[in-house]
Amino acid sequence: MKLLRVGPAGEERPCVLAPDGRVFDLSSVTGDIDGGFLAGGGVERVRSALAEGRLPEAGPYGRVGAPVARPGKIVCIGLNYSDHAEETGAAIPAEPVVFLKASNTLVGPDDEVLVPRRSVKTDYEVELAVILGRTARYLSSPEEAADVIAGYAIANDVSEREFQNERGGQWDKGKSCETFNPLGPWLVTPDEVGDPQALGLRLWVNGELRQNGSTKNQIFGVHHVIWYLSQFMVLEPGDVVNTGTPAGVALGRGPQAYLRAGDVVELEIDGLGRQRQRIGQA
Amino acid sequence: MKLLRVGPAGEERPCVLAPDGRVFDLSSVTGDIDGGFLAGGGVERVRSALAEGRLPEAGPYGRVGAPVARPGKIVCIGLNYSDHAEETGAAIPAEPVVFLKASNTLVGPDDEVLVPRRSVKTDYEVELAVILGRTARYLSSPEEAADVIAGYAIANDVSEREFQNERGGQWDKGKSCETFNPLGPWLVTPDEVGDPQALGLRLWVNGELRQNGSTKNQIFGVHHVIWYLSQFMVLEPGDVVNTGTPAGVALGRGPQAYLRAGDVVELEIDGLGRQRQRIGQA
Repeated sequence: MKLLRVGPAGEERPCVLAPDGRVFDLSSVTGDIDGGFLAGGGVERVRSALAEGRLPEAGPYGRVGAPVARPGKIVCIGLNYSDHAEETGAAIPAEPVVFLKASNTLVGPDDEVLVPRRSVKTDYEVELAVILGRTARYLSSPEEAADVIAGYAIANDVSEREFQNERGGQWDKGKSCETFNPLGPWLVTPDEVGDPQALGLRLWVNGELRQNGSTKNQIFGVHHVIWYLSQFMVLEPGDVVNTGTPAGVALGRGPQAYLRAGDVVELEIDGLGRQRQRIGQA
Repeated sequence: MKLLRVGPAGEERPCVLAPDGRVFDLSSVTGDIDGGFLAGGGVERVRSALAEGRLPEAGPYGRVGAPVARPGKIVCIGLNYSDHAEETGAAIPAEPVVFLKASNTLVGPDDEVLVPRRSVKTDYEVELAVILGRTARYLSSPEEAADVIAGYAIANDVSEREFQNERGGQWDKGKSCETFNPLGPWLVTPDEVGDPQALGLRLWVNGELRQNGSTKNQIFGVHHVIWYLSQFMVLEPGDVVNTGTPAGVALGRGPQAYLRAGDVVELEIDGLGRQRQRIGQA
């Protein structure tokens, strides 16, 4: 199933995309798609309502928002593809590299992304995002992770490399700028995604293919990552985990590859749809 | 003014501590003390209601919670006291070191703090926390920061040093464990705090004084920190900023100084009250 949220920013309505391409309004089922909905059997209620033909069509909508409202946190895995670790000059990590991203960076998949003021190194990163459906605390094995995953989505883990790497400290400073986490268009449930370690990821800047990878090359697979994180923090329903990016980012290509106002970034992951962002200036 | 939240975890009621020591219930003024309350003139409404004698006394309560509900993020400043930078072997930073802490680490000032499973280096850090009352986005000077601060509180920025420093990556991994951010007992408004750069901070473990510093020794003062952060991320009402810890943490004292189940940690900052946590085991 593909869940989405449509309408103006801050006023999104919950919807479901049916297999025939029609979009149905879920307002009769839930107020929003958030942690409470995902943890409370919401997906199953939508499945029933859709099967029984009880949902009205959504009608025209101007914008798609992020497919989950107000995540408690966005956790990110760094250097999780060997080709990306190589291009940044970093060693292959022995265990997952973990950092956080402010959750108010979340925007819709086609919203404008803003180059921060005084930024010269704004970069892109196509990533497979995991959205939690249940609490994960000290999971005993990677296999248990399957039970806590509500679904998957595309994320652009937008990054400012000077802020991240040259401003004296931790990466978070270059990861938490306004608009730096487009997510969506859909939350796709695991049954539709199939093997999360067999998904192609692609990203274009102004039509030029810059990233072209596959989740089969992740150093730490999705289930391992969720199990691992649960040893260090409590993951909650609605939380988002960005699982890393393959090679091809501007950091590995040289100064002319960074994003500038007016650029257009497009992202795609097999089965998860497509994003398109115009770059603006803060 | 001193705002607080009392009652069982997840069911806290908003209250105000009057100058005569009585605690009044704010349920008639607001549903909770959160970003919306702070941004919407809530503090002034409480001031009026208190002055007019319109508030009922709170009656007995068993527990004090964190003084702000559901912060969107907890941002932390690292190495912000020169004596603490020295004890950890780090250089004095040229600009603030910034990292994030998962916001579901927030607990009340006297709640149990859990040593994570497989932890051998759980550490304490007394810190002056700032609670935002307005949005801060590209503030033009440190002076503007005064307008966006709702108040101050004590924070214990509990840290697992092995997870933070020896597990291949960014500090966040050792900062975001369950129960790792006791906050409170009160949100104290700036008019009562006076100069935020003249506050003594103290922390004891099992009655032994371990940290004894003053915010006058912060490398980057509170207003500078808030201005600086606003250049990299959008701070929102209800967000919490931990502004760093003075010397005396276990990391600088040796292995026997780390926290174990059964220990008792007490913290105090001039004018901001006192915390007391019993250490447990996750």
